[in-house]
Amino acid sequence: MSTNHFKKVQQLLADHDAFLAQKNEPQKGGNGIFERWKNPVVTAAHAPILWRYDLDPATNPHLLERQGVNAAFNSGAIFHEGKYLLCVRVEGVDRKSFFAIAESPNGVDNFRFWDYPVVLPEMEDPDINVYDMRLVRHEDGWIYGQFCTERKDPAAPPGDTSQATAQGGLVRTRDLRTWERLPDLKTPSSQQRNVVLHPEFVDGKYAFYTRPQDGFVDVGGGGGIGWGLSELMNPAVLTHEKIIDQRLYHTIKEVKNGQGPAPLRTPEGWLHLAHGVRNTAAGLRYVLYMFMTAIDEPWRVTHAPAGHFIAPEGDERVGDVSNVTFSNGWILNAQNEVFIYYGSSDTRMHVATSTLEKLVDYCLNTPSDGLRSAASVQTRIGLIERNLAFLNRVK
Amino acid sequence: MSTNHFKKVQQLLADHDAFLAQKNEPQKGGNGIFERWKNPVVTAAHAPILWRYDLDPATNPHLLERQGVNAAFNSGAIFHEGKYLLCVRVEGVDRKSFFAIAESPNGVDNFRFWDYPVVLPEMEDPDINVYDMRLVRHEDGWIYGQFCTERKDPAAPPGDTSQATAQGGLVRTRDLRTWERLPDLKTPSSQQRNVVLHPEFVDGKYAFYTRPQDGFVDVGGGGGIGWGLSELMNPAVLTHEKIIDQRLYHTIKEVKNGQGPAPLRTPEGWLHLAHGVRNTAAGLRYVLYMFMTAIDEPWRVTHAPAGHFIAPEGDERVGDVSNVTFSNGWILNAQNEVFIYYGSSDTRMHVATSTLEKLVDYCLNTPSDGLRSAASVQTRIGLIERNLAFLNRVK
Repeated sequence: MSTNHFKKVQQLLADHDAFLAQKNEPQKGGNGIFERWKNPVVTAAHAPILWRYDLDPATNPHLLERQGVNAAFNSGAIFHEGKYLLCVRVEGVDRKSFFAIAESPNGVDNFRFWDYPVVLPEMEDPDINVYDMRLVRHEDGWIYGQFCTERKDPAAPPGDTSQATAQGGLVRTRDLRTWERLPDLKTPSSQQRNVVLHPEFVDGKYAFYTRPQDGFVDVGGGGGIGWGLSELMNPAVLTHEKIIDQRLYHTIKEVKNGQGPAPLRTPEGWLHLAHGVRNTAAGLRYVLYMFMTAIDEPWRVTHAPAGHFIAPEGDERVGDVSNVTFSNGWILNAQNEVFIYYGSSDTRMHVATSTLEKLVDYCLNTPSDGLRSAASVQTRIGLIERNLAFLNRVK
Repeated sequence: MSTNHFKKVQQLLADHDAFLAQKNEPQKGGNGIFERWKNPVVTAAHAPILWRYDLDPATNPHLLERQGVNAAFNSGAIFHEGKYLLCVRVEGVDRKSFFAIAESPNGVDNFRFWDYPVVLPEMEDPDINVYDMRLVRHEDGWIYGQFCTERKDPAAPPGDTSQATAQGGLVRTRDLRTWERLPDLKTPSSQQRNVVLHPEFVDGKYAFYTRPQDGFVDVGGGGGIGWGLSELMNPAVLTHEKIIDQRLYHTIKEVKNGQGPAPLRTPEGWLHLAHGVRNTAAGLRYVLYMFMTAIDEPWRVTHAPAGHFIAPEGDERVGDVSNVTFSNGWILNAQNEVFIYYGSSDTRMHVATSTLEKLVDYCLNTPSDGLRSAASVQTRIGLIERNLAFLNRVK
């Protein structure tokens, strides 16, 4: 091997290391509820050099990239053995998504992928694409992964190369390295996305959040966040599915919505992060919203702050699929800090940080949706009057 | 209250004041017809702190934002008591739009919202959303507001959470503080958007520009800018509606168009600003265009420069609904300067400045649309040849 080629390889690896070692810092400003961090935490550029280049000059004398990575987004998240881990949706330039674990010591920067991507066992009817993993440490002792598995619709008319079906795929692991595939979740609905396992047994059963849909993209006449119980995980079967958080006219979840990561247990109830979708003249807009459910009845919504919690801002607005924020992972650490991981525009991963206390405060004290303009104005006028009275008192 | 909390409140208010006091300046370059100004003139961040935060530590110890504002765009405009006023479409994070007056001493910066948003009286069938106010000082002495009022379509099939109906809402005021609601404009069309009152009587009647449409988003087989007369404003009823500016194949108004603010009277005719819409692979694209109509026949187009007058540029291109410029307000001051206020991508407000003389020149002397490529090339070759002859003459 020529010295020159070896130097180029060394430079490539060194530049990548320097890139991965960049420090992150919170953005200035904000709304008090959470802090956005400046740099995306995982991007396509975070994919290891060894995953993309053939470094051997015998087979790659020009040191060309051999298998590009297009995007790194919608990641599950878990705190494991002292590390913040993301189960990233990595998308190759071939448009196929796969999962890979990226690890950070602090949750906000220095995310590095493990040596190999996740090898997800296949079923008899193989997945064509897999994405949007939720990682849930269940009280039964397993870490479960719930993800979307997509296959071409066998009922698609000839010539239709797009029509597909989406189902809730399931795996489990102890170490996030070896994965056992379980049968796809069976539900009363024809298709599923955004399937999330509740972290605790409910009435001794496994509990699932679902998002039933009639078609591949359209939720059809149904939709909303569903809820159901299964006796087992192998196989997991919901015989009943009820909608616990509906789509609603002229809200941020008018067209579609879905549970984000599994909810967090708090003294005041289960804290939920979800996404809501509306239509615009420029396509769909995905934003994040929060709600809370009762501790003993995780299907019963107790608090629903109006509107979005996080919407695309600045560079987040544009990507492979613009105008999207999506979250399927967050981490609560021992200091009650919450690391909210969200993908922007199907392209990259970001983090916003808050505390359990602040997020519960947000859910308990943000006005709920008045469902029409005049109601919003009245609520805001109430706020303005209380503020004017307060400022008069203290001056 | 702790000193610390009080300091945080003071800092929040002081930072906001400093932001509002920023000077604006015209951008370099441009086309001679108008000057774009660098900073947006009104944004979500312009919404007063008192509208968003509960400042009282007793009820908001973490000083979290309690009622966020998502966007501030498509504003009506009026010169009133020596001030440049915008009637801004403010959208909360809950996606409900409402109106609020922002005031500037010079029309290009230092816009500050009045203490309270507009309280718009409701009808028996309440508005779900209201937006895109036109403010018109009519020769009858009233200031009229025309806006879009949206309600869920009672005929929507169950499970369709999006289908809505749009109508022309009407209010009037003397001082922009107290508003009297009038019945919605009645027209021969099933739905209306972009309703604009002509500022003068025509044949002793109130005259309206309309944009009839068959559906909520689609204009259907009809569309174009309509025109009709009403005996009264309470109620305002158009028994006839004729199209005065049609949609046209392969123009900037192929899919939809609509009158912008009310036209300005000039010695050469009425000067109109409007928006045109075409479709793209990334959704609809909204641009502004101008035309002129005859002084005594405001429904008769006399001059129609080809193509767009203002299209999204730079940061204007991206927002909640990308690829949109939209104007429903402009101000002619005593110096014959024109302040063109336009929203970009359903997110923020900008200003471009010109003069009445330049805008009329633009309308009179810009070639009209040849409606095919070869015709455009021929017009351009004529221009080039005249220029070459000119340069030869003067050198």
